[in-house]
Amino acid sequence: MKVSELGEFGLIARLAEALAAQPTADSASRLAVGIGDDAAVWRIDGGALIATTDTLVAGVHFLPERTPWRDLGWKALAVNVSDVAAMGGTPDFALVTLGLPKDTPVAEIDELYAGLAEAGEAYGVSITGGDIVRAPTFFISVALMGYASVDASGEPLVMRRSAAQAGNLLAVSGSLGGAAAGLHALQQGCAGMEALIQRHLRPAARLQSGRTAREAGVRCAIDVSDGLLQDLGQICRASDVGAAVRRDALPIDPALAAAFEAKETLRYAVAGGEDYELLITVSEEAAERLGPHAVLAGTSLTRIGRVISGKGILVQTKKGRISIPYKGFEHFGSSSNSRRQR
Amino acid sequence: MKVSELGEFGLIARLAEALAAQPTADSASRLAVGIGDDAAVWRIDGGALIATTDTLVAGVHFLPERTPWRDLGWKALAVNVSDVAAMGGTPDFALVTLGLPKDTPVAEIDELYAGLAEAGEAYGVSITGGDIVRAPTFFISVALMGYASVDASGEPLVMRRSAAQAGNLLAVSGSLGGAAAGLHALQQGCAGMEALIQRHLRPAARLQSGRTAREAGVRCAIDVSDGLLQDLGQICRASDVGAAVRRDALPIDPALAAAFEAKETLRYAVAGGEDYELLITVSEEAAERLGPHAVLAGTSLTRIGRVISGKGILVQTKKGRISIPYKGFEHFGSSSNSRRQR
Repeated sequence: MKVSELGEFGLIARLAEALAAQPTADSASRLAVGIGDDAAVWRIDGGALIATTDTLVAGVHFLPERTPWRDLGWKALAVNVSDVAAMGGTPDFALVTLGLPKDTPVAEIDELYAGLAEAGEAYGVSITGGDIVRAPTFFISVALMGYASVDASGEPLVMRRSAAQAGNLLAVSGSLGGAAAGLHALQQGCAGMEALIQRHLRPAARLQSGRTAREAGVRCAIDVSDGLLQDLGQICRASDVGAAVRRDALPIDPALAAAFEAKETLRYAVAGGEDYELLITVSEEAAERLGPHAVLAGTSLTRIGRVISGKGILVQTKKGRISIPYKGFEHFGSSSNSRRQR
Repeated sequence: MKVSELGEFGLIARLAEALAAQPTADSASRLAVGIGDDAAVWRIDGGALIATTDTLVAGVHFLPERTPWRDLGWKALAVNVSDVAAMGGTPDFALVTLGLPKDTPVAEIDELYAGLAEAGEAYGVSITGGDIVRAPTFFISVALMGYASVDASGEPLVMRRSAAQAGNLLAVSGSLGGAAAGLHALQQGCAGMEALIQRHLRPAARLQSGRTAREAGVRCAIDVSDGLLQDLGQICRASDVGAAVRRDALPIDPALAAAFEAKETLRYAVAGGEDYELLITVSEEAAERLGPHAVLAGTSLTRIGRVISGKGILVQTKKGRISIPYKGFEHFGSSSNSRRQR
C-alpha cells in the first residue's frame, strides 16, 4: 500500500498506534493533549506547555512563482499561531527550518525572513533558532511553542476537538471561503481580486479570539485550515457527534460573495480552506457569556448550526436538509475541489 | 547571490540579523540562548525550557536506497537528543514532520515510526504530534523540547558554545571518525564493516554524559555533528579563542583504525561528521572534578588539547605544529571531503 492510498489522517492514526505500543516514558504521564488535535499540550510544574508544527512545501502548499516571499514568511508562522489560537493558548517561541535548493537567491530568503519577523511581531513570538538544509524543493517548517493556563488542580485549560457535546451551538469567527477563492484568483491571474488574494497570502490567526473564547468557558475548537466541513468533521469524529449546519447562516467572505456565483461561493465557503477562522462548539450557558453574535476581541462570531447526536454532517437549506458530499484537503488524495495545487 | 555562495552559516547569521531588527517581543526578554547554539533556551517561571530541531533530507543527509527506515527513524530523533545533550539539558517531547512522496510504501513509514518509538523509549522522549505533508522528496524534521536546571536566581544552567576560555582543557567523549567511515562503507558496499556502518546509521546521543558534565561545572560544549575541526571552530568563533589539538591524543574509533590507513583514519576523525560525541572545554578545576580521563556515565572522556588565546586551530604532531586545512559539512558548499552525499 502507498501513502497516497492511506491518506494523511490514516498515516497520523498509524503513527499514534505505533507510539501507543511504546512503553510509557516519564514524560507521557504529563501529556494532556497528544496526537490528533491542533497542538500538543503537557503539564509542567505550575503550568502547561503547548507545541505545534506546520510545514509549507513549494508546489504543494503554495504557488512558488506567484507567492511573494515575504507573504510566505508571514504565513508560515501565522498558520502555526492559528493552531495555538485554536487551543486557547499563547504562543511564545518558534524554531524555523528551511529546505533550500542551492540556487535559491539570497534576496528571496531575506524577504522570507522579513515576513517571519513581521508575523513574530504581530503575534508576540520570538524566533529563536532552527535548521537550514539543502533540499531539491523549497520547504519551510515552523515549530511553535507556547503555554496555556491551568486550573487550580494543574489541568490545562484548553479547547479540544474532542469536547463537543450534542446540543452545543456551532459558531465560526470572521468569514469563510475568501482564502480559497484568493488562491483561485492567484492561479488564474484574475484582476480586481486583491482582497481575496490577500486573504490567501496573509492569513490572520485568531489569537485573541481563541483566548477570549476559552476564558468564556468554550471547551471545543478547531481552526478552519482544511475547509469548514472537513474541520467540522474532525470535531465530529473526535467527539463522536454529528452536526447540523444552516447554509443561510454561513458568514461568506463579502469579497467572495461579490465576485463569484452563489454555487461557487458556497463551495469555497464549505470546502475551501486556509481561512484560519476558529470553529467552536459552545454550550448555551457559555454562549450566554459570549453573546449570540459575540464580538470576540475584534472578530465577529457567527452561529452557524448545532452539534447533534449521531454521525455525519447535515446542511439545512430552505428546501430541507441535505447531506452534501464534501472533501477538504487531503495531502495525498486527489479530490478535485482541493484548493491547493498539485 | 545564491544561497550556495552564502552557505549555511551565512544564512543563519543573516536570519539572526533580520530578527534582531524586530521590535522586542515580550518573550525575547526571557531568551537565554538564541540562534547560534545547539539549542535555544528560555526562562519560564521556576525553570528553563530547551528546544531544537534537525532535519534529514533524502539524498542530502542519508542514502535513501541503503538506509533502513527503522534506523532513519532512530537517527532523526537521536540527532536532536544530541543537541539537547550538548546543552546539558533533558529532552521531553517531540514533534515529527514527514514530507512524503505519494508513492512511499506505508510499510516503510511503519518502520520509520518503529525507529522513532525505539529512540523515544531510549531517551525518555514522547512523540506528541507533528505534521505530514506531501513532498517531491522525502524528509523528516523533528522538533524536540525539553528543560534545563536553573540556578538560585533563575538563570539556566546550560553549556554554551560561547563559554570557552583560554587555558581550558579540550575533551571529547567516546571515539571519532567511525560514523563517516561507516557512511563510506555503506556507499561503497564494503564487506565486514558492520560496526562502522552501525555507527553511521544508529548514532548514540551522549545524553547522560552531557548532564554529568554540566553538573560537574562544565560550561562549554558542542556535539560533533559536522566534524571535530568544524565543530571546534564553532566553539572558537563563538568564544573568540583558538585551540591546540594533539593529533596523537585523538580517540580514533577502533573499528576505523583497524580498517583504514592512518591518513584516511585521521581525515575521518577530524573532518568526518555525525559521530555525535560531545566536545567540551573545561577549566582545570572542573576537570579535577571530572577526572583526567573521566568516565562520564558510561562514556569515556579523552583530553585532546587545550583552548588558547588567538584565532585558529593548531594540530600538534610529533614533528611539530601544523595548521591543517579542514572543512566540515557545509550544506550548500562543495567541499570534497564532506561525508554526506550530494
